Amino acid sequence: MRPRGDMPDAEFVAHGRQAVQWVAEYLGHPERYPVLAQVAPGAVRAALPQTPPRAGEAMEVILRDVDRTIIPGITHWNHPSFFAYFAITGSGPGIIGDLLASALNVNGMLWKTSPAATELEEVVMGWLGQMLGLPDGWFGLIMDTASVASLCAIAAAREAVQDHPFRMEGMAGGPRLRMYASEQANSSIEKAGITLGLGQRGVRKIPVDREFRMDAAALRRAVTEDRAAGWRPFCVVATAGTTSTTSIDPIPAIADVCEAEGMWLHVDAAYAGIAAVAPEFRWVLAGCERADSVVVNPHKWLFTPIDCSAFYCRRPDVLRAAFSLVPEYLWTSEGEQSEVHDLANYGVQLGRRFRALKLWFVIRYFGWEGLAARIREHVRLGQELARWVDADPDFERLAPTPLSTVCFRYHPHRLRDRRGAEEELEGLNAGLLDAVNATGQAYLSHTRLGGKFTLRVAIGNIRTTEAHVRAVWELLRATGNRLPAVER
Amino acid sequence: MRPRGDMPDAEFVAHGRQAVQWVAEYLGHPERYPVLAQVAPGAVRAALPQTPPRAGEAMEVILRDVDRTIIPGITHWNHPSFFAYFAITGSGPGIIGDLLASALNVNGMLWKTSPAATELEEVVMGWLGQMLGLPDGWFGLIMDTASVASLCAIAAAREAVQDHPFRMEGMAGGPRLRMYASEQANSSIEKAGITLGLGQRGVRKIPVDREFRMDAAALRRAVTEDRAAGWRPFCVVATAGTTSTTSIDPIPAIADVCEAEGMWLHVDAAYAGIAAVAPEFRWVLAGCERADSVVVNPHKWLFTPIDCSAFYCRRPDVLRAAFSLVPEYLWTSEGEQSEVHDLANYGVQLGRRFRALKLWFVIRYFGWEGLAARIREHVRLGQELARWVDADPDFERLAPTPLSTVCFRYHPHRLRDRRGAEEELEGLNAGLLDAVNATGQAYLSHTRLGGKFTLRVAIGNIRTTEAHVRAVWELLRATGNRLPAVER
Repeated sequence: MRPRGDMPDAEFVAHGRQAVQWVAEYLGHPERYPVLAQVAPGAVRAALPQTPPRAGEAMEVILRDVDRTIIPGITHWNHPSFFAYFAITGSGPGIIGDLLASALNVNGMLWKTSPAATELEEVVMGWLGQMLGLPDGWFGLIMDTASVASLCAIAAAREAVQDHPFRMEGMAGGPRLRMYASEQANSSIEKAGITLGLGQRGVRKIPVDREFRMDAAALRRAVTEDRAAGWRPFCVVATAGTTSTTSIDPIPAIADVCEAEGMWLHVDAAYAGIAAVAPEFRWVLAGCERADSVVVNPHKWLFTPIDCSAFYCRRPDVLRAAFSLVPEYLWTSEGEQSEVHDLANYGVQLGRRFRALKLWFVIRYFGWEGLAARIREHVRLGQELARWVDADPDFERLAPTPLSTVCFRYHPHRLRDRRGAEEELEGLNAGLLDAVNATGQAYLSHTRLGGKFTLRVAIGNIRTTEAHVRAVWELLRATGNRLPAVER
Repeated sequence: MRPRGDMPDAEFVAHGRQAVQWVAEYLGHPERYPVLAQVAPGAVRAALPQTPPRAGEAMEVILRDVDRTIIPGITHWNHPSFFAYFAITGSGPGIIGDLLASALNVNGMLWKTSPAATELEEVVMGWLGQMLGLPDGWFGLIMDTASVASLCAIAAAREAVQDHPFRMEGMAGGPRLRMYASEQANSSIEKAGITLGLGQRGVRKIPVDREFRMDAAALRRAVTEDRAAGWRPFCVVATAGTTSTTSIDPIPAIADVCEAEGMWLHVDAAYAGIAAVAPEFRWVLAGCERADSVVVNPHKWLFTPIDCSAFYCRRPDVLRAAFSLVPEYLWTSEGEQSEVHDLANYGVQLGRRFRALKLWFVIRYFGWEGLAARIREHVRLGQELARWVDADPDFERLAPTPLSTVCFRYHPHRLRDRRGAEEELEGLNAGLLDAVNATGQAYLSHTRLGGKFTLRVAIGNIRTTEAHVRAVWELLRATGNRLPAVER
């Protein structure tokens, strides 16, 4: 048999159209499916052959198996009642843009390997920066995830430390570096610290105030204390929109400390930073103009399919110093011009998918105002739910609701003021969470705040309306009422 | 104006179909376009508005602008005469699978957040492992790029070092770690070393033999020397398919050294490892069964759209120890079961796109035999071209051609045996490269071997046939003949 190249064009058209039709029906009615997959661990694996097919199979069969085997094991992030983690959401234009990126299949590692990929990325990052109110002239590039973007930021922070040549000599003989993030920072920050060789002890967690925001005075004290103990403080990661409660760290006060102490300030605004697209929420990024780097994730709350993380850096020369390596086989005359950039020199990865395309489609299709309107509505829904929780004597809100994520627990009236109720509340809420998720009608996740098991409703899906929020609220109340008292 | 949710379904169908049609026409005739984009630096940027649109725009306009503004700035990796770098290539089934992944838009960070994403990933990695002849029972997961996979491997290698608690204490007070890779290893390996805090000095480059393969005896000597000088050797990165010449390091001999010295062996087989899908090329991975980790890239030579990098690890417990962090908000009861995995605990990134889907589509649609046949044909074409080069008195091959990448230079007969010809050859070949690329009929890149400016023809695109290889060869010969003698 002679090899036959790619799938024939006519077949691609037929099956591509079939896939488009499937997606339209899926996105038109994600409520057909339980939000949280109802499969047992191992069930999908057991339904699949354990050896690859020798001969090729027909696309009809493959697409049929998506429906039969894959879909039952999908937790539907597209479901309008997906309220867990952050309700990240794609959109039609984002999917179409991503389809073209898959087809063009360029590796935008160098300007020359697709000038349009590099230049569109610059332009779209400029657009997004304007929408967020970031300063003009910052350098921006797209990464896959905020985990990687924050790791790159901290690596640049290390490179900016002048008293040891980290790039050449590494960390073994150098000063003991320490970075700072709040107790509520995302785990990816600590993981970046471990990866970069700071160790967990090189990541000091700063206490938060009653609203789960970093205590800037405690940060200042910690830095002073650490300097006295021989540490070299070098970086602070502030969070605009923590994962548990979307609290916003006091970035201006943190910037004061960073400036006084000569530390790099990175702002992890992966989720909440996107809110700044609506001018009335620009306050979430207040102080970021004094940061050295900021990350926001269009794949979280800007209707762009995963993955797409927007990384801004005020000091691209330092970022480049941390990451640039140009072996002969990657050398191009254009890459040495100041007018264009070889973006692989500004991060970990050499391979770079053309992610700017989907973000460009999203911003153009919805427009700045359309995006802001959707975010505004999510925040309005979050505020509504917070009011409903506050008004119900059997529920208790456990954190402020600055945006669209509401943290609360079931706290039935009968248990108020009863001593020793905490243990019962823990069991009740864990049970309530499981019971609600098992219905398949909504999916929430949890966190722990001040030791209390906390339910989270995170609103961010493009299809979520007030009816969906009202429904999950009614479901929570009804399920709570039906829960048996926990055995003591 | 009320926010309106996502693009209406009917509109998605219409424009989705339009995009599918566009892709089919594009992939059916990529030769319509110059391979290498012919735009000047800054031209694409200048053609785009510098501010985002306030109101949404029609998809017709956006798609029109793809043709008008983006496509002229694309370097066409899909062109069958793209012979630069590695000729990475997607395919119809891969694009359709990726479309569904964009639409499902799950974040497979935890088993629970989409059981099918995690379990399909395990199954497909098992399939690919069988196709490559890797040992049963290895742990496999998909990452975005080999850059990240190799970084994770080296981080695991560090975690495996028993004499210092790197995860907790970091590298500052620990032993001076040193890793080893050949002079011909990809720059991403050195970059990973810098990122992880080893520093460039912590990455020792081992000389290669005349066929550009790591000299295992030199490795052994280097390790001994380094131990005596107070270094702690901990990791070797062998390359199966170096970027310049696709040379295959002697992995069995390197494994001997690693076993004797207690070092982690990671094999960067990003490109050439895929060849092992054809049984007669399994030798490229010989010895990998003794490695601790291996990376191969389906997005390079397995017809899967970028990005998709397959990372295998014999010691997932160590990988997990290097990367696992489970904050309360990510805790699930299933994640603690041994039967399933939360894959975010085995790498840097918390966010995980559903990349297994496209790989599953590719393997099923083409079948193991269909994939092997296409790879086999690419290797046959590479061998043909190598023979043509060898038979031509005006060209000179500069490296062995184990697979489908041919390294050579123009070396006109008139310059043979002339003293001082090297400088002229440098100019001639740089000029030949630019002249060929400027035609838009083919795109090659270069490297430097033994100081010599070297042309590379890398064959890997799914649409490349013998006619395309013959055409680039004729183009090279004709262009070489027309080149003016370089001024001395």
